[in-house]
Amino acid sequence: MNYPNNIKKTIKNPLSHKNRGMDLEDELNLTNDYYLEINKALIYKKPTPIGVAKVSYSKEGKVIDRAFFKEPSTLDYNGLYRGKYIEFEAKVTMNHTAFPLSNIHPHQINHIRKVMEHQGIVFLVIKINALVYLLTGKDFINYIETNNRKSIKYAYIKEKGYLINYGFRPILDYLKIVDNLYFKEEL
Amino acid sequence: MNYPNNIKKTIKNPLSHKNRGMDLEDELNLTNDYYLEINKALIYKKPTPIGVAKVSYSKEGKVIDRAFFKEPSTLDYNGLYRGKYIEFEAKVTMNHTAFPLSNIHPHQINHIRKVMEHQGIVFLVIKINALVYLLTGKDFINYIETNNRKSIKYAYIKEKGYLINYGFRPILDYLKIVDNLYFKEEL
Repeated sequence: MNYPNNIKKTIKNPLSHKNRGMDLEDELNLTNDYYLEINKALIYKKPTPIGVAKVSYSKEGKVIDRAFFKEPSTLDYNGLYRGKYIEFEAKVTMNHTAFPLSNIHPHQINHIRKVMEHQGIVFLVIKINALVYLLTGKDFINYIETNNRKSIKYAYIKEKGYLINYGFRPILDYLKIVDNLYFKEEL
Repeated sequence: MNYPNNIKKTIKNPLSHKNRGMDLEDELNLTNDYYLEINKALIYKKPTPIGVAKVSYSKEGKVIDRAFFKEPSTLDYNGLYRGKYIEFEAKVTMNHTAFPLSNIHPHQINHIRKVMEHQGIVFLVIKINALVYLLTGKDFINYIETNNRKSIKYAYIKEKGYLINYGFRPILDYLKIVDNLYFKEEL
């Protein structure tokens, strides 16, 4: 395949460096499928927002012939757990020492603040150094407001984040951490 | 444009019969924008789920060259209001006497049941005879379980539904009805 040189960087897929056959998104989708199956939570990945530019009609129905990816203003996953609204973003970084903040759009940062304000549960799931951490919206915003940096140091993620261990079913039982963080008084 | 005869019906747009310049989706999007602006609620329309079949790269970035619309298993709109999870579907019918149930997929009906079970707020917004009604998930499911029909009679929607009046800002103040239905004890 030939691409113009100047956009080469948009083609690189950070996940291609990994040896694992499954990426974080697949792992979380399977985890959410499992939660759905055992009727524990209703959490879905939102479809990627696109702008449809051209459609046509085939025997199979309506077909999109041209469309563009749009920048999301909310987070990737949202849903309902134990009567509460839950929303999170999942990101992988190949950087070993920090999580680059360019991974989270300014609109999304503002949205995280608003979800907190409206009493929703909001967090990031960050995969760094092959480990998966849950970082609460509060700790994320606190970092941003007190550090003038372009990334979150790995040391901060290790200190403030909660490690999500890999398991069989579910693969990434992040609701176990959510239970401890947000429903402790009810357990 | 020439389309094969057998798919002609998928091309018809029920909204094209209307004189109004704005359709129900636009009205609800503007209403939600207003709620966001006054910081009353965080409610978004979910992007339509698509399956991307082919992408390419242009100077503007990644472009989708072929994709298909997928059947949604959740409802169109969801979000956070007063600490509660809220989800709804909006549908217009040109039928004067009934709302055809073919408008709501079986997966979505199952999802409505689950949202109720997990203590979320769930309802339909139905535009029929130029009037907009909010029909609670409970009244929708009750109808389905006690009637062996392919549509909901308009009489039932008039009896059980709550009329959402048109206004200036917001255009369709459906949260006023949500307040009365789900937050009465807190008002």
